[in-house]
Amino acid sequence: MQKKENVSMSVIRRLPRYYRFLSELKKNGETRTSSKDLSERMGFTASQIRQDFNCFGGFGQQGYGYSIPQLCIEIEKILGIDKTKKCILIGAGNLGRTIAAHVPFASVGFQLTGIFDSNDDLVGEEIGDQAIRPYHTVHDCIRQEKPVMAILCVPRDSVEEIVKALYADGLKSFWNFSHYDISMDYPDAIVENVHLNDSMMTLSYKLTNIAAKKE
Amino acid sequence: MQKKENVSMSVIRRLPRYYRFLSELKKNGETRTSSKDLSERMGFTASQIRQDFNCFGGFGQQGYGYSIPQLCIEIEKILGIDKTKKCILIGAGNLGRTIAAHVPFASVGFQLTGIFDSNDDLVGEEIGDQAIRPYHTVHDCIRQEKPVMAILCVPRDSVEEIVKALYADGLKSFWNFSHYDISMDYPDAIVENVHLNDSMMTLSYKLTNIAAKKE
Repeated sequence: MQKKENVSMSVIRRLPRYYRFLSELKKNGETRTSSKDLSERMGFTASQIRQDFNCFGGFGQQGYGYSIPQLCIEIEKILGIDKTKKCILIGAGNLGRTIAAHVPFASVGFQLTGIFDSNDDLVGEEIGDQAIRPYHTVHDCIRQEKPVMAILCVPRDSVEEIVKALYADGLKSFWNFSHYDISMDYPDAIVENVHLNDSMMTLSYKLTNIAAKKE
Repeated sequence: MQKKENVSMSVIRRLPRYYRFLSELKKNGETRTSSKDLSERMGFTASQIRQDFNCFGGFGQQGYGYSIPQLCIEIEKILGIDKTKKCILIGAGNLGRTIAAHVPFASVGFQLTGIFDSNDDLVGEEIGDQAIRPYHTVHDCIRQEKPVMAILCVPRDSVEEIVKALYADGLKSFWNFSHYDISMDYPDAIVENVHLNDSMMTLSYKLTNIAAKKE
């Protein structure tokens, strides 16, 4: 695979969507697709799709289209989801429990190996195959079990201190559900934010402006 | 306020972030800020910030900076979060409960007026100030209470049918947590997707590629 250097994050962000569509086609027993076919199913233009796939060296043969299983394998490799990375979850409240139960970790490249909370009442309770551990043991866990990513499901007022401690322990990658802007204080941290409120506000904008225009 | 036509969605998507930062400054009693100050706190360039605010007619006076309370009010108006829109939630499983409990609806422009589930065992149970209602009553609710948006926290295999039914009832705006691509089948629907798996895969990419490069 001849990979271009510096593939833009906007291309990367489309890959999970391609992967979802292709996985569904694969599950339905389909074996070949074309940029035209994908375009009709996904709403991207065919030329956009060819351009995106070209960033990673193509995958296709002109006139023959793409092999769906091969595309899936190549995208898995690019996204790194073919390799399992250990992660831990901090904060076993409503949100943390939902994430632990809802996310299919194995199929997105991760294994959840520990859930931590500072509330003693929760310690020992089981979520899936994990018993909640006391937060003060997270440092030993990082040293011994070497997780590479932490999922942050803690309130805004405790998240700064937690990130500081985890970062000092060498854990520098975060799936961040809080509103603390980690990248400002730790420019080399690898962060993916899920800001539910921001998403709601964007929807409010669309409803207020796009819907109003249509009327 | 002199508003430019056709403000791009990438500018709109930055507004909730500005709003979060400005609200925090306001809470701390600060009254004025500048593009330079915001730049240092948020990591956008000062010129980017001025350009973004100019899309909506400025808000500032050269040399005097911006009034924080006024900026907050203007952004609230643009996002439409100064007006409350009724919404309902479909699917009271783990994810639905968390959303109902976790999202500060009032501060993002919405009021949650109904929670629906097709599981009879859940009906009547209270989440916050709402009792879960049977899903088959959602159509009466839409006609009588006129919610404008539905939050979809249902499994992939039931979401298509639900969207079809809600759309037929005239409800055409969705906060979508499922992996069903609503916009493909309903191009005029107003949709905001939260794809947790896509976010995890993007993080896997960053960990695999950015982290590897640094070593």
